[in-house]
Parts: sequence; C-alpha cells; structure tokens
Amino acid sequence: TRTIELAVIAGDGIGTEVVEQGLLALDAALSGTDVSVRTTDFDLGARRWHATGETLTDTDLEAIRGHEAILLGAIGDPQVPSGVLERGLLLKLRFALDHYVNLRPGRLYPGVTSPLANPGEVDFVVVREGTEGPYVGNGGAIRVGTPAEVANEVSVNTAFGVERVVRDAFARAASRPRKKLTLVHKHNVLVHAGHLWRRTVDAVNAEFPDVTVDYLHVDAATIFLVTNPSRFDVIVTDNLFGDILTDLAAAITGGIGLAASANINPDRTAPSMFEPVHGSAPDIAGQGKADPTATVLSVAMLLDHLGLTDAAASVERAVAADLAERGSLGRVRSTAEVGKDLAARISG
Amino acid sequence: TRTIELAVIAGDGIGTEVVEQGLLALDAALSGTDVSVRTTDFDLGARRWHATGETLTDTDLEAIRGHEAILLGAIGDPQVPSGVLERGLLLKLRFALDHYVNLRPGRLYPGVTSPLANPGEVDFVVVREGTEGPYVGNGGAIRVGTPAEVANEVSVNTAFGVERVVRDAFARAASRPRKKLTLVHKHNVLVHAGHLWRRTVDAVNAEFPDVTVDYLHVDAATIFLVTNPSRFDVIVTDNLFGDILTDLAAAITGGIGLAASANINPDRTAPSMFEPVHGSAPDIAGQGKADPTATVLSVAMLLDHLGLTDAAASVERAVAADLAERGSLGRVRSTAEVGKDLAARISG
Ligand SMILES: CC(C)[C@H](C(=O)O)[C@@H](O)C(=O)O
Ligand SMILES: CC(C)[C@H](C(=O)O)[C@@H](O)C(=O)O
Repeated sequence: TRTIELAVIAGDGIGTEVVEQGLLALDAALSGTDVSVRTTDFDLGARRWHATGETLTDTDLEAIRGHEAILLGAIGDPQVPSGVLERGLLLKLRFALDHYVNLRPGRLYPGVTSPLANPGEVDFVVVREGTEGPYVGNGGAIRVGTPAEVANEVSVNTAFGVERVVRDAFARAASRPRKKLTLVHKHNVLVHAGHLWRRTVDAVNAEFPDVTVDYLHVDAATIFLVTNPSRFDVIVTDNLFGDILTDLAAAITGGIGLAASANINPDRTAPSMFEPVHGSAPDIAGQGKADPTATVLSVAMLLDHLGLTDAAASVERAVAADLAERGSLGRVRSTAEVGKDLAARISG
Repeated sequence: TRTIELAVIAGDGIGTEVVEQGLLALDAALSGTDVSVRTTDFDLGARRWHATGETLTDTDLEAIRGHEAILLGAIGDPQVPSGVLERGLLLKLRFALDHYVNLRPGRLYPGVTSPLANPGEVDFVVVREGTEGPYVGNGGAIRVGTPAEVANEVSVNTAFGVERVVRDAFARAASRPRKKLTLVHKHNVLVHAGHLWRRTVDAVNAEFPDVTVDYLHVDAATIFLVTNPSRFDVIVTDNLFGDILTDLAAAITGGIGLAASANINPDRTAPSMFEPVHGSAPDIAGQGKADPTATVLSVAMLLDHLGLTDAAASVERAVAADLAERGSLGRVRSTAEVGKDLAARISG
C-alpha cells in the first residue's frame, strides 16, 4: 500500500469549488487500488493575504515541499493589488519548486463545441517553460508617476533553463505518434533569446533524430491555432508565449473550463503542481456554476505524474465520456453535479 | 494641384507583386482629382542586402525622410539571417521615423469567411505601440554557445512613449460610435511596465470622459478574439502584444491577405509608412498568387492619413464590394486580376 501526500491549495473564488470535485475524482480513481491519498490543506491566497498580509511564507513553502504533489484551484480576488498573489504565491511556487515544464494539453474532445467552424482533430500539448523568460521578476522602474518614468522588464533566458525544457519537449514528442515538435518564439526581433532557443532546439534534435522540428514566430502560431490547429503535436516555447498560446489553445478546444495544466519538476527534487488553467472567476464564485472538468483533468495529469497511469486513464476516459454526452443532456449541471457524475463514471 | 511624394519600398517576394497593385489602386483613387503622386522606388530588402550587405544606410533614410509617406510591400527572404532585415530595415524605419502608432484594423467584411463558426460583427482597431517595449533591441547575451549562456531581452517602456500612444488611442475611441477602449497587457506579471500602462490609461481617461475603458490580460484577450471579437472597439497595447494580437485578428477576419496596417507618426515629423501585415511569402512569390487586398487597404489608410478621405473611402468601398462578390466568382483570381478589378471599381 502506498499513501500519497498531497498538498491542497484550493485558493479563492471558484478554486475551492472545483478542487472539491477534483478530490472526489481522485478518490474515485484510487478506490479499489492499494493507493490512498492523505491531503493537507494550505490556506493560501486572497483570504489569507487579507487576514495576515502573507502570501507564501518560508514555513508554508517548507511544509509544501514535504508533499509528493500539489493540487491547486485558483488564486486571487479583485481586492488584492495586481501582481501580489501572482508573483508572491503562484509564480513563487512555480519558481521555488523548479516547475520548469508547464504542460498544457490542447485537445478537442468529441462532443465539445469549438468556436472554430472547422477545427479538425486537435490534440497537441504545449510545453511552456516555467522558470525563466519575462516571468523572472527582473524588472524595475525609475521616476515612477512622473513624465520621465522608465519601466523595464527583463526576460532572462539561460542555456541551462532552455536546454532542460527543450529536452523534455523532445522526449514527449518522441513518445507521441506524430513525433513533431514546433518551436515558437520571435527570434527575428528577440534575437538573443530567440537564437538561444533555436540553437538549443537544433542541438537537442541530434539526440532525437526521429522527431521532426519546425519553427513558428509567435504571431504566426496564433494564426495556425485558429486556421489549422491539427498541424500541432508538441509545441515548446517560453514562459510568456506559452501563457498566451495556452489560453488561445483552451479557447479553441472548448474553453478554459476544460483546460488542464501541470507544473512539473521532472527531476522530482520538489513536488509538481497541478492546476486548471482558469482563474478564480470572482464573477461566478459561490454559485456552483464553475466547470470542475479542468481540475479533474489536472488530477489525471497528477496521477500520471505519480506513475498511476491506469487511474489517470480512468479519469480521462470518464471525462471524455461525460463530454461526449454533455450536449444531449439538455441542461447545464452545477459544479457538484458534474463532479458527482464524473466520480461515478470513474468508479463505474 | 497637389503632388504627393511617395517613397515606395516594394521589397522582396510577393512585396513587389502586391505593391504594383497598390499603386494601381492609388492612381485610380486619385484620377479625376487635382492630386497626383510622384513615386520614388527604394531598392531595400533582401536583394539589396545580398548584393551589397546594406540594410538601410543613412543616405537611404535621409532620402526617405524627404517624402510625405511610404508604401512598403514586404521584406525578407529565407537566405538572410533572421533579424538582419527585421532589425536593420523594417524596425529601423519604424523607430527612426517615430512610427509610434502602429494601426491595424480588425474588420470582418461581409462575404469574407472567418475560421470562427459565429464571428458576429467584427470591427475593431488595434493601436499597437511602435517604438518601445521588447522591440527596442535592448538585449544581449554572454557566453554564447556554451552551457553557461545567458540571453536577456529588455522591454523598455517610458511614460513619454506610453502616454502619446494611449492618447492617440483614446482620440480614436472617442471618434468611434462605441467609444470603447481596451487596454491589453499582462500587469499581473510584468508589473512595472504593466502598471505604467495602467496608470497612463487611467490618467488620460480623464481627458476623454466619454470613452469607456476596460482591461484584459493578453492571454485572456486571445480568448475573446476567438469567442467574442465583437466586444472589441479600440485596443491599445504594447509592441509585442500588438504584434501577436494583430496576427490573430487578421486570422479571424479572413487572413493576412486582407490585413492592412499603418505605421503612423502622428506628429508628422517624418513620413508615415503603410504596409500589409503579411510578409514576403517566399513560398508563393512570383506566381501571381498573392492577394493584393491588404496592400490596397493599406493604400486607403495612406490616403486617409494624407487627408484625402474621399479617395480613401472610394478604395475601401471598392474592396468591400469586391470581397462581397468574391465567393460567387467561382474561381481564384491572380494578383494582377484582383488589382485590376479593384482599380476598375475605384475608378467606376
Ligand atoms: C495568473 C498568472 C500569473 C498565470 C500566468 O501568467 O502564468 C496564469 O495566466 C496562467 O497561465 O497560469
Ligand atoms: C517582421 C516583424 C519584425 C514584424 C513585427 O514583429 O512587427 C511583423 O511581424 C509585423 O507584425 O509587422
């Protein structure tokens, strides 16, 4: 028997609602196995910040480190100044726990309506770098609030950081039927960072000779995501471009209510973190309107990361079956109803 | 009688093909008026670089400065190293001539097929900052080619630069029926630059109290561009986000074959530059396959900028009429045929 120590950061807004359903799915997936889960709740996010002014203390971080994985709902509310929780909590976790592979599948499930007229088959995954780029917090401003203000943001990219995520992306591409990797950057403008990415992809390609590589500028990539998303298999890109492309990818595959993500530390020196791509959605919080599917799919990624591939597959199958029949239900279910239905399918 | 001194940079690939048709449209629009055009061709781009190693000399730049406006086709071919012509020619022109308003309409013309199933009415304009942000060329790398390489890119944003483009965007919003301005940035991560943009929009809003302002993170903006593009009226954003959003905007409104742009110096201290959003498309160059419509619509923006609003309107009407009937033609016309048909409609 194995006990998974899971840190749970339900967070704010709909975060708590969807995490509840994610945990139901997790229990269902592990029932009848010899694996169990022990959860520890971490009170982090807007509520904690309003109460104490704290975002993520060293004590929190050390306690989280003691777990095998993290399930996160969503962070933030409009009363917290922009950047405080993003930089002080969410990104701090991703950086401190070295989540250098931010994995975001773009998959259009049968039965799901895309805003695209002819989406075709869509099944790709974005490997977004998670610990570098314009996200490092290396910016600053002078003469703030005066007409002479200058505000800079520095994108930091290292061979160390780019190579490890590129190698991970190649390995994923090599294990997929199409074996295709698309590098997305903007190397005609961001020449230094862009050329580092390019050279790295060329170099690592030698280790994965059966993977076909192509390149798109980020602007062109957004075009293909709406005109021919089937062309993509694995996309590797930097932190900011990955942020943008994965929201667009979510949109064309049925919306952020379905978009899962995994912040992975492939070296397993710290727990990986699984979270829906969506935010805390204060406008619909507390109304049972949030779709927990993205969180449930993130739970599947969590199970997969922990080597529990059968359990992961059962969650994915349940979601696929639920999505396939959703259109014929004739009504919109509440968060809890969707969660209950998914758990039932997983157990069944 | 007035003579417009027009610098023409046809450039590479399909650039020369589409510019030829753009000039036909320009002539047609001015025929019967007392305005004429005198063009000066500038041999700039890949051909020149291959022959001489030059991108844009001081002499070229001074000669271009002597003109009232610039019509540019497209720059680049795959044999030129990435960044050389972009930074040494195209961006150099935008920066040296202080094209701080990069104007890119996103309009779905009747009769044009969008990749979106239900695009609705789409008629917005992106005001992309053109002289700052991650495009300034303020980056560098150390230990290039070694495992210890670090490559940085610096986004430089100034109150001076942000305020002038924001004011221009507000003025455009104020002159449109919906009077709505959306700021797009990522201020929860790029806090210094993002907060400068936010504060500036709030401050300038006081001068335009009838303009409604909202804000979207760039990732969310890509979602709305495919799920509800009708929500946009005027978008103001930085150079890189504007690059990304305008390619996506082009995609949802029928493709980059139709997407016009204007690099405007609103202070008229140097000529503004008009160019299709698309590139030199080496794959179809020389085959008469390129759609000159984006260039013709850029010519309409040129006429508008020069105060020739009737002529501009005649070009736009011709394009709208042509697009409305395109689907019923039953065949694809060549570049020259489209150009001829448009010119005939403009004259007619
Ligand atoms: C909340 C924000 C900091 C975050 C990001 O930009 O990474 C979010 O948009 C995401 O994609 O997970
Ligand atoms: C060619 C490139 C430098 C340019 C840009 O990024 O601005 C192009 O993509 C555009 O949008 O005009």
